[in-house]
Amino acid sequence: MERMRDGDVLVVRLADGEDFFEGLKQALKAEGVHAGVVLGAVGMLKEPAIGFYRGGGKYETLPVKGEVEICALAGNVAVVEGDVFLHLHVTMGTSSGAALAGHMTGGRVHMTAEIAVHILHKPMTRVPDSKTGLKTLTFE
Amino acid sequence: MERMRDGDVLVVRLADGEDFFEGLKQALKAEGVHAGVVLGAVGMLKEPAIGFYRGGGKYETLPVKGEVEICALAGNVAVVEGDVFLHLHVTMGTSSGAALAGHMTGGRVHMTAEIAVHILHKPMTRVPDSKTGLKTLTFE
Amino acid sequence: MERMRDGDVLVVRLADGEDFFEGLKQALKAEGVHAGVVLGAVGMLKEPAIGFYRGGGKYETLPVKGEVEICALAGNVAVVEGDVFLHLHVTMGTSSGAALAGHMTGGRVHMTAEIAVHILHKPMTRVPDSKTGLKTLTFE
Repeated sequence: MERMRDGDVLVVRLADGEDFFEGLKQALKAEGVHAGVVLGAVGMLKEPAIGFYRGGGKYETLPVKGEVEICALAGNVAVVEGDVFLHLHVTMGTSSGAALAGHMTGGRVHMTAEIAVHILHKPMTRVPDSKTGLKTLTFE
Repeated sequence: MERMRDGDVLVVRLADGEDFFEGLKQALKAEGVHAGVVLGAVGMLKEPAIGFYRGGGKYETLPVKGEVEICALAGNVAVVEGDVFLHLHVTMGTSSGAALAGHMTGGRVHMTAEIAVHILHKPMTRVPDSKTGLKTLTFE
Repeated sequence: MERMRDGDVLVVRLADGEDFFEGLKQALKAEGVHAGVVLGAVGMLKEPAIGFYRGGGKYETLPVKGEVEICALAGNVAVVEGDVFLHLHVTMGTSSGAALAGHMTGGRVHMTAEIAVHILHKPMTRVPDSKTGLKTLTFE
């Protein structure tokens, strides 16, 4: 993990084989970031895990085989139970050019990944919501 | 609709059932925003409407059934005839993981939606262009 | 090419027929930008070229026929051998609504394209990496 902060923009580069979530969290923690908006990402993933939300707190897991290009990354950084939490949705290009997309639950970097986050200074947290089964993004 | 502004970044959360365009416009108007760049969005939509531009001001409508994950949102905020206008393109993940994408013309929030906009202070407007049939993004 | 800079955000509009990479580079050079993060883009492309990385510096080319909606654009601006270099991944909506995505290698604007970049002031460069065959994004 390498990083560069320029004002409120944090650019992170993860190397081949790094865990995507752990590498990005490591960069955020090193910069003392507790809230932010993901600006985007490019690079590749190997066998990423994505999910589709079925309600009641349950995601249907959609396995992705092999390597894919990271073509869009959206989401944010908030605090859940005192720890930095990443909510990420990813769009990926396959070797045929067809795109896959979903709630990102995991993945390792293939070759390289370049991620940008806009750092926020006001707190964002997530609190359980019994109606949706999700942890709702909450402002103060 | 709940919102949090941190400098020039506006984070908006829409609740289950809210109209996506109306909820986001409501947040922009409450903050007095007339120009901006969409940074991204995550969450879900139910039966969103997307279109593909055929020229002459006409979009081919591409109905989307059921619920989908919002995986990328791009576009901007400008003024058209004195009112805030959203130009949005959306990428969505279906329950199979396959992605759909197009010019967004409508949709209701399913479960939750988290949207971020970078607020601009210089004006952007849209003016009709007879050549493309579109309202062209215009700077002053 | 028309552009508007508001603080560190650069909004670029390219007209029908303009080369996407050349038009965007022209805007960046006119503003003296050497580093940045792409915030997103909307509009359309005609017969864009995308690729899937196979390693060893080689991309498999995935031709895209006809016109497509630009639904997400991610990547960054850095310097390679003294010149501004764009690393872009694009997600596109086809006339059926199905999405295509990949490493963007070229394309002309169809109708219009609206692109936003967050300008950075600290340098980012790319240096050859024999392990991946890529030019690695590098901070100072």
